[in-house]
Amino acid sequence: MRATIMHAPGDVRVEDRDKPAIQRPTDAVIKLVAACVCGSDLWPYRGADKLARPQPMGHEYVGIVEEIGADVKNVQPGQFVVGSFIASDNTCEICRSGYQSGCVHRQGVGGAQAEYLRVPLADGTLVAAPEMPDHEKIPSLLAASDVLGTGWFAAKAAEVGPGKTVAVVGDGAVGLLGVLAAQRMGAERIIAMSRHVNRQALAREFGATDIVAERGDAGVKKIKELTGGLGAHSVLEAVGTQESMLQAIHATRAGGHVGFVGVSHDVALPGRDLFSSHVHLHGGPAPVRQYLPELIDLILRGEINPGKVFDLELPLDQAPEAYKAMDERRAIKVLLRP
Amino acid sequence: MRATIMHAPGDVRVEDRDKPAIQRPTDAVIKLVAACVCGSDLWPYRGADKLARPQPMGHEYVGIVEEIGADVKNVQPGQFVVGSFIASDNTCEICRSGYQSGCVHRQGVGGAQAEYLRVPLADGTLVAAPEMPDHEKIPSLLAASDVLGTGWFAAKAAEVGPGKTVAVVGDGAVGLLGVLAAQRMGAERIIAMSRHVNRQALAREFGATDIVAERGDAGVKKIKELTGGLGAHSVLEAVGTQESMLQAIHATRAGGHVGFVGVSHDVALPGRDLFSSHVHLHGGPAPVRQYLPELIDLILRGEINPGKVFDLELPLDQAPEAYKAMDERRAIKVLLRP
Repeated sequence: MRATIMHAPGDVRVEDRDKPAIQRPTDAVIKLVAACVCGSDLWPYRGADKLARPQPMGHEYVGIVEEIGADVKNVQPGQFVVGSFIASDNTCEICRSGYQSGCVHRQGVGGAQAEYLRVPLADGTLVAAPEMPDHEKIPSLLAASDVLGTGWFAAKAAEVGPGKTVAVVGDGAVGLLGVLAAQRMGAERIIAMSRHVNRQALAREFGATDIVAERGDAGVKKIKELTGGLGAHSVLEAVGTQESMLQAIHATRAGGHVGFVGVSHDVALPGRDLFSSHVHLHGGPAPVRQYLPELIDLILRGEINPGKVFDLELPLDQAPEAYKAMDERRAIKVLLRP
Repeated sequence: MRATIMHAPGDVRVEDRDKPAIQRPTDAVIKLVAACVCGSDLWPYRGADKLARPQPMGHEYVGIVEEIGADVKNVQPGQFVVGSFIASDNTCEICRSGYQSGCVHRQGVGGAQAEYLRVPLADGTLVAAPEMPDHEKIPSLLAASDVLGTGWFAAKAAEVGPGKTVAVVGDGAVGLLGVLAAQRMGAERIIAMSRHVNRQALAREFGATDIVAERGDAGVKKIKELTGGLGAHSVLEAVGTQESMLQAIHATRAGGHVGFVGVSHDVALPGRDLFSSHVHLHGGPAPVRQYLPELIDLILRGEINPGKVFDLELPLDQAPEAYKAMDERRAIKVLLRP
């Protein structure tokens, strides 16, 4: 089968690899309908994360179940499924508390930018759609697999709710879908922090009421001006750098909530900033599995259209161009068709 | 009047100073009934915090109102009052949300290890007891002013509640009263982390069900062993160092809560630890004012006896010895009688 492999920073190739097979009775193999490139894939692409060996890429996926292991009961061959980037049993105490991404048996899922994918712990990880979805729903269902679920978690972690003012740091797909999540959760005011006209437009479409183009301390100042000097009730952080984390913390009022989902890179939070800020800080890898049933339902009923974050669609063989377009910020997010 | 002044690390003196006077119409001046030395006073005493000039010490206090400014309505001369180390108006949006220590008009209160104290924003800061309390209640009411209120906030910030397993990092007065708070809030199991026999005994008296003497990674390992490998639901941090913060974060299960109240010193939290831990982190200077009415009531009804943390009582003139005893950990907490 064809699969996307990263060999080194900037060096992504589509190569022939063995089709994955069932390794454990709890596995499923799915035939991918769509996959995509994640903002976090850009960290190794840009050399910020080290690659020990050539790496099969991709952890966002929708597909059709091809084969299941002997113990799999919840999904059947032929079903259309959505999964998360972390495989979870969905039965342990941590899963039951809503943190499937912290499952005691969690495993990473990788190699989804390909024709087929092996998904471990299939019963706990995959959620089947009630029927084969329409073609135009595919991008949104694919978004649910990671970026929507992650934006949703950021909003939950930041305790977004009715009457609240929300600020979103980061205008990638996750930040933009954090705006959508905040809108769905009833936020009164949603401030998107973005300097890019096309991303600002999508943020507004998803529910942003205000745009702040400034960053860092200037961005914090602007948020304070917009909130009577107090800061936002809830701030979603979707970047993962020291600047973005401090921007999020400082833009939040005392007693407010920061939900951070940007994968941390070289972040060291000064204790004094945290201590004096009085914010609640919560985040990490999103427990997407928790939200999948609700998100799939919202998408199939046409209530939300998160697939709009895909502003470029390419055949799998052009995965190298997909990485390039996202790296150069020519595209917000690229969908790959195997 | 006599007042305690810190001149340099290790150099504390009791000197004659002018009796404080009303400076603003919202001030009150109180005659102190009792004061005490705080764990945080040891930071400058040990040279970990810089002193720019000789510093009047003390921020925990109970006393009798001596004089009030023209605008003060909620307390009257002759009343016995308890206040917090941060003066707050108790009317701004941040105060109303329960974060009086983040009040937009907040001011520090200082110089309480003395005969008299000026308290700014008296209406928002001081809480009067319904009547003159019995002599034996004084230590507990004094504890409410900071260490009990701070331990209480740590437990609230860590979302302590029925059925939960709680761990407490730090066996100073705040940590010990965090144990008491956790017990009052219905925790099922309370693990006190302490290496000192007399503090272990007091922790047990306040409600600890288990004691862990190990620190750092060994302490974390022990907490995991006691919690089926998952970590505690709620961890209270009452030290303020890098080691204690990481100990608290790593001892908490995914989705659990860390309440941190130790004043941060040279803490820089690695983003990856926070990201992968999935904990909720909340803390800072405790909004003691929020809890004072409830705490005073519990104390006067004899429901709790937090004053037990005072294991040494000295006349104000012996303040230098009070610092020495706490620095050398001969005393948990020293009460000073003006």
